[in-house]
Amino acid sequence: MKHAYASINLKEKFSNFSETWTPKILGQFDGYYLKAAKMSGEFVWHQHHDVDELFIVISGTLKIHFRDGEVTISPGECFIVPKGVDHKPVANGEVQCLLIEKAGTLNTGDQGGDRTVSEEEWI
Amino acid sequence: MKHAYASINLKEKFSNFSETWTPKILGQFDGYYLKAAKMSGEFVWHQHHDVDELFIVISGTLKIHFRDGEVTISPGECFIVPKGVDHKPVANGEVQCLLIEKAGTLNTGDQGGDRTVSEEEWI
Repeated sequence: MKHAYASINLKEKFSNFSETWTPKILGQFDGYYLKAAKMSGEFVWHQHHDVDELFIVISGTLKIHFRDGEVTISPGECFIVPKGVDHKPVANGEVQCLLIEKAGTLNTGDQGGDRTVSEEEWI
Repeated sequence: MKHAYASINLKEKFSNFSETWTPKILGQFDGYYLKAAKMSGEFVWHQHHDVDELFIVISGTLKIHFRDGEVTISPGECFIVPKGVDHKPVANGEVQCLLIEKAGTLNTGDQGGDRTVSEEEWI
């Protein structure tokens, strides 16, 4: 008998949590995670010294500040933050975003601090 | 002076090509590519012996057949095809899809044949 495999429905996954700046893991491929994140307001300046980070914005508008500039990422847009680059995400209203990055990457990167999520949850 | 970095706009990128089953590279993070693919009709059975493949469907409905079942991926849905698993994508109408996989992954995997794109193009 044939098996019907389940896809990952993003709308459903985003409806399963409300915390902001607390990425949830949706899937793993090779050593990388596909994560869902909600963002609102300002996050902290940080960088990931050995990890490039792919952002795909689903809803809302995410601005990422860099020391020398910024990028605005609207729904249906993507951006890759290169490793070692200081950045500070700022969400105007609520942003729903996919994050794709190496498993084990901390949300606050090398910065640490009380907004660090040390063990991200699968949903 | 502050620099305005450019995001990757998916709608614009998808409007830049029409060929199906010919993924285009949008960006690189670590050793992985973010690709845009258009799909229509049936592709060939193939597998990637050492690469997991993440599909994110933007528009249209993609069905992926496996030897023991299938998955239907609608817009706003994702699926990860594990390494070493035989699969055959079938698009009903035109599908626009993001693919995320290790750089150097061939569209036809270990199968080869005349639908292989040996050097994928950046757009």
